[in-house]
Amino acid sequence: MKKAVCLLSGGLDSATCLAFARREGFECYALSFDYGQRHRIELEAAAKVAGRLGAARHVIAQISLDAFGGSALTSEIAVPKARSFAEMGEGIPVTYVPARNTIFLSFALAWAEVLESSDIFIGVNALDYSGYPDCRPGFIEAYQRMANLATKAGVEGRTHLVIHTPLIQLTKSQIVKLGRELGVPFGLTHSCYDPLPGGRPCGQCDACLLRRKGFEEAGIEDR
Amino acid sequence: MKKAVCLLSGGLDSATCLAFARREGFECYALSFDYGQRHRIELEAAAKVAGRLGAARHVIAQISLDAFGGSALTSEIAVPKARSFAEMGEGIPVTYVPARNTIFLSFALAWAEVLESSDIFIGVNALDYSGYPDCRPGFIEAYQRMANLATKAGVEGRTHLVIHTPLIQLTKSQIVKLGRELGVPFGLTHSCYDPLPGGRPCGQCDACLLRRKGFEEAGIEDR
Repeated sequence: MKKAVCLLSGGLDSATCLAFARREGFECYALSFDYGQRHRIELEAAAKVAGRLGAARHVIAQISLDAFGGSALTSEIAVPKARSFAEMGEGIPVTYVPARNTIFLSFALAWAEVLESSDIFIGVNALDYSGYPDCRPGFIEAYQRMANLATKAGVEGRTHLVIHTPLIQLTKSQIVKLGRELGVPFGLTHSCYDPLPGGRPCGQCDACLLRRKGFEEAGIEDR
Repeated sequence: MKKAVCLLSGGLDSATCLAFARREGFECYALSFDYGQRHRIELEAAAKVAGRLGAARHVIAQISLDAFGGSALTSEIAVPKARSFAEMGEGIPVTYVPARNTIFLSFALAWAEVLESSDIFIGVNALDYSGYPDCRPGFIEAYQRMANLATKAGVEGRTHLVIHTPLIQLTKSQIVKLGRELGVPFGLTHSCYDPLPGGRPCGQCDACLLRRKGFEEAGIEDR
């Protein structure tokens, strides 16, 4: 069976992306990061999702991204609440983590090389992407080009690495519909940037608002 | 003063690269990694070199690269000894760490973004590079292109990130001569892949052999 490394945050999108890779017939190596994020609930969600969706292995890599600061997700900047979708569309929010997808893809690349895999899945999407630069198609294409010059297998012409982004052109409601079709256990996933004590979603951060809108538009219950 | 992030392993090349960036007038933010390498001596060397060369700050980022294995530098594969320079030129050695420079540059990019710096220095060289794919000019160019699509500052057109590789076309003896000219404290640097108990270099691994050859050809004493 062909192996793929699948980035898995524990959120709705990456869970759907993993389920998609499984349906495509890949043996999936799920990769999450403990990067000094403010809460651990998403890592617990990732572990549950990896198990339920039949990942061959799930690794949580420890990385000290918080050493640099610069994001509401890793430092003491407040997570914005109750913004309108128009506000979310303007500029890059403080929840942006500098170079996060660049770093995550680089670890995926390292693991892919060790596994002799030439396939990496990442659940980015360019539409409801809250203005993150590293979710755009141009970035992914440039990353793939670089990655094929970075590795032993690339240099030796044994593989051509592909960064798969099955969700990149989907709206949140299309992702919800795809997830339902693929049997994603929505109730195990976690999207909130700033959960309440006990782990329940705040309902007011960008991630919560986009998630609710996606389920409402899809006419599917979030559970 | 313009800020630059300088990757610093504690070896001869990265120390020379840092000294070069300092002479170019940059305020230098030195970045090293604790990536599960088999020995810590190079991290101690990096800290001493950063201090001596006047880095504004030195951060050692913890990353669990050893979770994936695949290299003699992070797992229990033996480091090759007493190879000829012809043997070193053939293929990619087991001391290659999968995607290492890709990962290191990604962290440098994150820090650069937080510092609002558009300059990263890395001491790769394409000549005596022991066959590592991620030391070649084509890789660096592709990385720079990707990096400019990855960040908030790039998207907003505020900066154009440059990956500086002042050593890329130099032989080891040219690096030694440049290092001498720049006042690099050679005696504080550490190159060996497999040091003896107590930390002395083994004298037989590729890194030791290339270093000795470089100093011999430059006619400079290694101290």
